[in-house]
Amino acid sequence: MDPRLIDTIADRLKKARTVLLATHVFPDGDALGSQLALSNVLESLGKKVVCYGEEPVSHFYDFLPGCDRIDLARPEPGQFDCAVALDCGDAERMGHAMASILAIHPLIVIDHHKGNDGFGDLNWVDQTRAATGEMVYDLAMAMGAEISYETAYCLYAAIVTDTGSFKYSSTTAETFRVVRELVNRGVKPAEVAGHLFDNFTVNRLHLLQEVLATLEIFMDGKVAVIHVSQEMYDRTGTTQTDTENFINYPRSLIPVKVAVFIKANSKGGLSVSLRSKGSDCDVTRVAHRFGGGGHRNAAGCRFQEKSIQQVRDMLVEELRPLVDGTCVEQV
Amino acid sequence: MDPRLIDTIADRLKKARTVLLATHVFPDGDALGSQLALSNVLESLGKKVVCYGEEPVSHFYDFLPGCDRIDLARPEPGQFDCAVALDCGDAERMGHAMASILAIHPLIVIDHHKGNDGFGDLNWVDQTRAATGEMVYDLAMAMGAEISYETAYCLYAAIVTDTGSFKYSSTTAETFRVVRELVNRGVKPAEVAGHLFDNFTVNRLHLLQEVLATLEIFMDGKVAVIHVSQEMYDRTGTTQTDTENFINYPRSLIPVKVAVFIKANSKGGLSVSLRSKGSDCDVTRVAHRFGGGGHRNAAGCRFQEKSIQQVRDMLVEELRPLVDGTCVEQV
Repeated sequence: MDPRLIDTIADRLKKARTVLLATHVFPDGDALGSQLALSNVLESLGKKVVCYGEEPVSHFYDFLPGCDRIDLARPEPGQFDCAVALDCGDAERMGHAMASILAIHPLIVIDHHKGNDGFGDLNWVDQTRAATGEMVYDLAMAMGAEISYETAYCLYAAIVTDTGSFKYSSTTAETFRVVRELVNRGVKPAEVAGHLFDNFTVNRLHLLQEVLATLEIFMDGKVAVIHVSQEMYDRTGTTQTDTENFINYPRSLIPVKVAVFIKANSKGGLSVSLRSKGSDCDVTRVAHRFGGGGHRNAAGCRFQEKSIQQVRDMLVEELRPLVDGTCVEQV
Repeated sequence: MDPRLIDTIADRLKKARTVLLATHVFPDGDALGSQLALSNVLESLGKKVVCYGEEPVSHFYDFLPGCDRIDLARPEPGQFDCAVALDCGDAERMGHAMASILAIHPLIVIDHHKGNDGFGDLNWVDQTRAATGEMVYDLAMAMGAEISYETAYCLYAAIVTDTGSFKYSSTTAETFRVVRELVNRGVKPAEVAGHLFDNFTVNRLHLLQEVLATLEIFMDGKVAVIHVSQEMYDRTGTTQTDTENFINYPRSLIPVKVAVFIKANSKGGLSVSLRSKGSDCDVTRVAHRFGGGGHRNAAGCRFQEKSIQQVRDMLVEELRPLVDGTCVEQV
């Protein structure tokens, strides 16, 4: 990136008085953690900040300090002299409030998603960063702000979420540089990890059992597919949010290049998560084919009026050329 | 610790010509990673080094560079002018070769286990360290040695193993300081994590399904127990080594304070793993009661001529006073 860009953004934020912070719909730990952390930083510098969210914070992330300040009211552009879109790969990811947010200037985009072509007035997009939270830490430093314990906690949660606890290929020495600083501010890694990963209910563990039983293997084990139907939610007293991280089970099979998880969603359709290992399978190519998006190793798309079997067959067919040339190996 | 101890140990190792490196039986990633890394370091300084192991390296760790050099021949004390016991909480953990290793002087103990009372001539025991690998890194620095890519890889694997990928309460800012340096030497976090965690076979995933179905809950959910019988191994074509990390499933239940995993072992008995969350349940107290040992949050013991149900009942009874005073909370 332009080495002055972070300083330009820091300057613009320092000049602002009222800032809207937006992130993507169905926000995860990186989205919410980055949003809440940056709001703390800006408030410590005397700004008035609103953290907009399209829906209430999921129970997976309601441990984040300050998450009760997520404001569901559609923002009115005239009330803000600056907006920041955090962790949004494109403008549509901001959801229903997109038009309102795009009407605020300057609009600053801070993101690490591949293919983000910059929909703001100032665009800091760096796909080499493991999490938007990593970038917010550096921005706070560039602004000369203090990082409070709560801010460090939110940023640590952001980075742990988006790196799968430092397991994904996005994890770099920069990531460890930042988290060391966050832990030096009092964050307890085990406490955050406990909230993010030790969050099973007995019902959810039963759902996991049922989902593991659906495992299907294709292309010599290079593609593994699991699914969950509405009947399985009903039987175990669970919902789609309980399937968080289940995709990691087919992904963890030794020969697997691409893991697929087909989920009945609350709108009567099917949501699909795609995960690939290593650098030779870019699953965004398949997600784009069906109107979705994401990163090289993590993407998704949705279907309406198709059965689980139909979606499975379409995806496997589309994955074939992507996976065919790769060798079977232990990664 | 005595600030000069690490330098004293560095000096003694620099004076040695032939060094035996030992670790504990059934070595895990921290044991093997520390052993192989220190052997690289010592060889780079011109020493002759033997890495003793009681059994061949498990397929879970045979990705570690240099693991083919683990030597199964019982060491002859007269051949060495120094020995190092790595990651051994007590002398018995060295297994059948204990007497031979104890006959070598100086015997240097480098370990992070609670309750290690120092069975060597020089004892560097620091239970605040997340992994013995972390300590070996600092020792290599104190010796002024170069850390090669292979050495960094072994140490990174050691630390990831013993912190559960930075999720356990042993993880500190020191841990992140060391791993950042290791990643700066070319280690790819996702590659190591892939070897350590994405190591499921389809059979193993079937075993996981069966084991999850055995879940039993006690004391308002504070204690969760799973088990695996010989019949379950036979039905799924698996062995005890395939149960690695399964204990994390009952541990991940929200109200759980202590998770218990009772495993049929290859000697016709039962091996038990105990895991606790937070600081208020020290499971070594229960493990010691049955002749076992370990850390505050991770301990184990063994039983002969008892049924799974008998062992479960004995453990639950012994855990009751430990867990009773704790509050139910989300950790």
